Amino acid sequence: MTGGIERAACIGGGVIGSGWAARFALNGIDVSLYDPGPDAGSVVQAAMVNAERAFNRLFGNARPAPGALSIAGSLAEAVDGAGFIQESVPERLDLKQRVLREIDAAAGADTLIASSTSGLLPSVLQTGLKHPERLLVGHPFNPVYLLPLVEVVAGRDTAPEAVERAGGFYRSLGMKPLAVRKEIDAFIADRLQEALWREALWLVHDGVATVGEIDDAIRYSFGLRWAQMGVFQTYRLAGGEAGMRHFMEQFGPCLAWPWTKLTHVPELDDALVDAIAEQSDRQAEGLSVRDLERARDDNLIGILEALERRGPAGWGAGALLSEARQRMRERSSG
Amino acid sequence: MTGGIERAACIGGGVIGSGWAARFALNGIDVSLYDPGPDAGSVVQAAMVNAERAFNRLFGNARPAPGALSIAGSLAEAVDGAGFIQESVPERLDLKQRVLREIDAAAGADTLIASSTSGLLPSVLQTGLKHPERLLVGHPFNPVYLLPLVEVVAGRDTAPEAVERAGGFYRSLGMKPLAVRKEIDAFIADRLQEALWREALWLVHDGVATVGEIDDAIRYSFGLRWAQMGVFQTYRLAGGEAGMRHFMEQFGPCLAWPWTKLTHVPELDDALVDAIAEQSDRQAEGLSVRDLERARDDNLIGILEALERRGPAGWGAGALLSEARQRMRERSSG
Repeated sequence: MTGGIERAACIGGGVIGSGWAARFALNGIDVSLYDPGPDAGSVVQAAMVNAERAFNRLFGNARPAPGALSIAGSLAEAVDGAGFIQESVPERLDLKQRVLREIDAAAGADTLIASSTSGLLPSVLQTGLKHPERLLVGHPFNPVYLLPLVEVVAGRDTAPEAVERAGGFYRSLGMKPLAVRKEIDAFIADRLQEALWREALWLVHDGVATVGEIDDAIRYSFGLRWAQMGVFQTYRLAGGEAGMRHFMEQFGPCLAWPWTKLTHVPELDDALVDAIAEQSDRQAEGLSVRDLERARDDNLIGILEALERRGPAGWGAGALLSEARQRMRERSSG
Repeated sequence: MTGGIERAACIGGGVIGSGWAARFALNGIDVSLYDPGPDAGSVVQAAMVNAERAFNRLFGNARPAPGALSIAGSLAEAVDGAGFIQESVPERLDLKQRVLREIDAAAGADTLIASSTSGLLPSVLQTGLKHPERLLVGHPFNPVYLLPLVEVVAGRDTAPEAVERAGGFYRSLGMKPLAVRKEIDAFIADRLQEALWREALWLVHDGVATVGEIDDAIRYSFGLRWAQMGVFQTYRLAGGEAGMRHFMEQFGPCLAWPWTKLTHVPELDDALVDAIAEQSDRQAEGLSVRDLERARDDNLIGILEALERRGPAGWGAGALLSEARQRMRERSSG
C-alpha cells in the first residue's frame, strides 16, 4: 500500500521534518522521529494537530488509522527497523554530512535515505557513506502534509533502483515526485523561488514596495495563475492564438533591457532584516503563526478541492487529490 | 456605479486590450475599441466569448446587462465621448508614445488615459502630451477579465487626483489596484516574474528541465502557496513559531552561495526558442489555445470561489469576489 514501507524514521524535527512525520503517520505509517533539540516533541505535535485537521477536512473518516508517532531518544533508535529514512536537519553541509554518515552506519544496507535539503548536491551528501547508492534527495515543500511536490535527485553514486523505489513511496503518499535530470544546486523549484525572492528583497531594500504590497502583487495576479499552470503554459496563452513562439518574439527583448537587478545580491544587513521583520509583523495583523498556518491550510484545501472538482480527470494537483481519496478509502476498508 | 464612467475606449485589441474590453463591457460599460490590425474584431469577439462564459459561471444572471461593444474605424472615433481610455498597444516605446499623443490630442482634457504597459515608465510615456497630468499606468494581468490585480503607477506629471479616480474606477470593476510608490521599470509584479522567468529559461537552456517539468515544479508546490499568500507571508510560516527573523537568519546565507545564474541573461537564439516552442507544443497535449484558455479560466474561477468560501471576510481575491457579487446584484436590479 505504501510501497511496502510500514515504518519510517524522521531525523530532524523542525517545520519540514515534522511535516514529513505528519504526512507519513496520517498515511498509516509508524514514525520514529529524532531531533536533538529540546522542543522536538512540541513542534511535531503541533504539526500533527494541523495535519490531522487538514486530513479530516480532506478525507473525513475514509482514511486508514494513523501510524504511531514516537520521539526516539537517539538517532540509532529512530532508524532501527525503519524501511525509509527522511533526513531534515538544518541546511549546513558539515552537519548534513555528519548526520547522514550516522544514519548510514545505523541503518540496514538497503534502507532508503532521502535528504530534504533545499539545494545541496546528493553527490556531495553521499561522500563517505558506506552505502551511497541508497542516498538521494527528496525535497518537499511546506506544508509537507498538503503540498504534493517532492523533487527527487540522484547523486553520482545513487542507484537508479533507489530513485524508482523512493518515487513509488512518495506517490503512495499522494505526492508528485519530480525526477530532476541533472544535479544542480537548489534543483528546479528553489532556483526559481530564489530568483524571485532576491528581486523581492531588492524591492523592499530600495523602498519600492513593502512586504505586504509585494505579497499582494503576487497573490492577486500570477500566484493565482501558477496554482494551476506554470510559467510556460501561462505565457503560451499570453501569445494568443499565435502561441509560444509569438510570445517569445514579443517579450524576449525585455529580458535584455533588463528589468531586474541582475548582478547583485542584496546584503542582508540589520537594516534590511529589521525592515522586513517589522513589515512582516504588520502584515500578519496580529494573527499568530498558528492562525496563519490554519488560514493557509484551509486556503490550500479549498484550492486543491476546486481543482479536483474540475472534472473526472482533475487538473494537476486536483487529479492527485482524487487518487489520494481513492487510495485512502481502500486502505481504510482493507 | 462604475466611478461615473459609462463609456470607455480601448486602444489596441490584442490579448490584453481585448481582455480589458470584455471586463469593461461585462460590467455594463459601453466600449469602443480601435486596433489597426485586420484581426481586431475576431480577437475581441473571442475574448468576449470566454469572458461571458466566465461571468455566467461567477455571477449567473445577477449582473448588469453588458455594455455595447463596438469596433471603431479610427482612434479618434474610439476616443470620442469616452470617460476612460485604456491603451494596450505593443510594448514598443516609440509606438506607445505616438499612440498616446494621438489619444491625448483626440480626448477631452480631463479624460483619464491609462497605459497597460508591462514596464515602461509613465514619466517617459507622458513626455510631450498636452495634458500629461491625466496619464498613468494601469498594468493588468492576463486574463484581464478574471485576474484582480492592476498596478497603478504615476509619472512625474501625473495628478494625484488621476491616480485616485483610476483606482476607484478599477475597484468598481472588482479589481485590486495596487499603487506603486516609486516609478521603476517593470513595476513590482513583472520584476518578480521576470527574475523567475530568466532562471526558467536557463534551466531549459542548460537541459536541466523541460518546460513541462518546470511548470509542474511550480504548480505542484509554490504556485499553490502563492495563490493565497505571497512570498513573505509564506516564508514567515517557514520560520515556524520563531517567525520571519528566524527564517531570514536560517536561509539568508543561501542567497550568497548563490543558487541562481545571477549575472547572465540567456540569449534567445533560434536553438532556445525552438526548444521552448517544441516542448510547449508537447506540453499542450493537443489542446488548442482556446481549450487551454477555458481550462485556465475554469481553474481560476474554482480557485477564486474556493477562497471566497473561506468565510464572511473572504481571503485575498476571495473577498474581492464577494464584493463583486454584491455590486453586480445591485446593478442588475438598479
